Amino acid sequence: MELEFIRRLRERLPPRQGDLLVGPGDDAAVLAWRSGGNCVVTTDMLTDGVDFRLSEADPRRIGRKALAVNLSDLAAMAAVPVAVVVSLALPRTASLELAWELYEGLLPLAVEFDTYVAGGDTNAWDGGLVINVTAIGRTTERGPLLRSGARPGDAIVVTGDFGGSILGKHFDFTPRVREALYLGANYEVRAAMDVSDGLSLDLGRMCEESGCGAELTLSSIPISAAAREAALRNPQSDTPLERALSDGEDFELLLAMPLEEASRAAADTSLGVGLSIIGRFVAERGLYAIDAAGNRTPLTPRGYEHRFGP
Amino acid sequence: MELEFIRRLRERLPPRQGDLLVGPGDDAAVLAWRSGGNCVVTTDMLTDGVDFRLSEADPRRIGRKALAVNLSDLAAMAAVPVAVVVSLALPRTASLELAWELYEGLLPLAVEFDTYVAGGDTNAWDGGLVINVTAIGRTTERGPLLRSGARPGDAIVVTGDFGGSILGKHFDFTPRVREALYLGANYEVRAAMDVSDGLSLDLGRMCEESGCGAELTLSSIPISAAAREAALRNPQSDTPLERALSDGEDFELLLAMPLEEASRAAADTSLGVGLSIIGRFVAERGLYAIDAAGNRTPLTPRGYEHRFGP
Repeated sequence: MELEFIRRLRERLPPRQGDLLVGPGDDAAVLAWRSGGNCVVTTDMLTDGVDFRLSEADPRRIGRKALAVNLSDLAAMAAVPVAVVVSLALPRTASLELAWELYEGLLPLAVEFDTYVAGGDTNAWDGGLVINVTAIGRTTERGPLLRSGARPGDAIVVTGDFGGSILGKHFDFTPRVREALYLGANYEVRAAMDVSDGLSLDLGRMCEESGCGAELTLSSIPISAAAREAALRNPQSDTPLERALSDGEDFELLLAMPLEEASRAAADTSLGVGLSIIGRFVAERGLYAIDAAGNRTPLTPRGYEHRFGP
Repeated sequence: MELEFIRRLRERLPPRQGDLLVGPGDDAAVLAWRSGGNCVVTTDMLTDGVDFRLSEADPRRIGRKALAVNLSDLAAMAAVPVAVVVSLALPRTASLELAWELYEGLLPLAVEFDTYVAGGDTNAWDGGLVINVTAIGRTTERGPLLRSGARPGDAIVVTGDFGGSILGKHFDFTPRVREALYLGANYEVRAAMDVSDGLSLDLGRMCEESGCGAELTLSSIPISAAAREAALRNPQSDTPLERALSDGEDFELLLAMPLEEASRAAADTSLGVGLSIIGRFVAERGLYAIDAAGNRTPLTPRGYEHRFGP
């Protein structure tokens, strides 16, 4: 990391404390691992034109998002955030102020989630803006929540509502760290993931990892106001329900829970976010939609799929 | 990470073992932290045109380098490598085969250093190739080696030789992990860093962190064959000595050790790499060169400095 920048960052960070034994400026950071728990690690790279548009977005929102998507992955494992490292590839045409603005968006969220900014790597190059964050967390006594634990009969449970994230939530969402830890500590949760590529697509992935299928009750899908707004703006395109099922970047939790536990949790007002039971896992592979009349039809998973190749 | 790619990667990785409780494919990886030690974390981002040229270099060498520079940072802390996560931004014009070739270069080095490839994030975009690796290590009983521990009177010690890395070593160097662990376990080492931006520049940084200065004995600087070769090719440019002092990407260890310890270590044939005593740390701030006649002159730190701004 550039020296002058490190100096400025060191001044901006909370004074070295607790478990961050060595912070930015040395060859690596050192985190005390006194508190036990296993080490959870996740990484996400955001690129200009795919995850944001630098020409349109406030760099602070971009920096915040880069951290938030990683915290969302830690939430999906029911891990407690510990620290992050941040890598930047800055366009040479930009100044180092851009790096600073990215950090100005990221740092308040780090403080909010008690997460150290332990270090990073700040580079300039002839390309566009790339920001990579790696987040480290620790497991609680409950252990990590995996995608693979759903069983036929479990309820499909989600936090929040879905669709239309492109209108703003993809920048400003709250990673469901507290909710995941609370649910993991107080309820039987068998599987979890965060919904980043679209509800039906990610549900399909959970089913695949768990070796089962799923029935979605369409009338129970929590459709966001943004999904309705986006559908209004593009009446030729998807309906609000279709958007809720296939838009990416909701960053809500998708959970498998025994039905009774799910019902108890959905009535738990301590949670602070809506919890919806939107269907159930079934033994038969594949996704199925149950419509208002009770008819069951196959549902094709849709969402954001990374495309490669010329 | 793209699903088909994860499947292929899972097949290629050694079967899940030991401390990698959850590997690629879930929202995050989980590493058992039974063995104690604190958590060391470092991250490095390599970009096309700065750290490599995709049009000229074998992607396998690029992938290897992306891991090696991170292992070099762990070595600088005397940390035992545990796991890495790998983020890629691939040009859309390339195919997913490029990602595979990068991994094909990275994986053998990961195996050589007993390091899990715990996960990653593989993206396509309209820009050039960017590869980010974050490495996680653990401290030994000795604790981490910092840049800040050098004291006046300590010997300046380096592994290997310097200069001309651009001719090939910057891709093919061996990160000094084993050497750092061996020296840390068997000798008193007061400070350490890896030389990535040039010997004199990085020595200046160690001095700054340690609050001291340094005298370099020019005749003791180990000059690489590549530095001589590079100087021959460009006779109008730097001498071999100047190259050894200022070329970047040597990825050798720079250490501060009490003189007696340094002398013992330099004679230790178990080390497997040459160890040179190239001067001493002094109380007076600044860098100084001692020439063959014993004259002492100020030395301007030179090396690779990251440039920002239009």
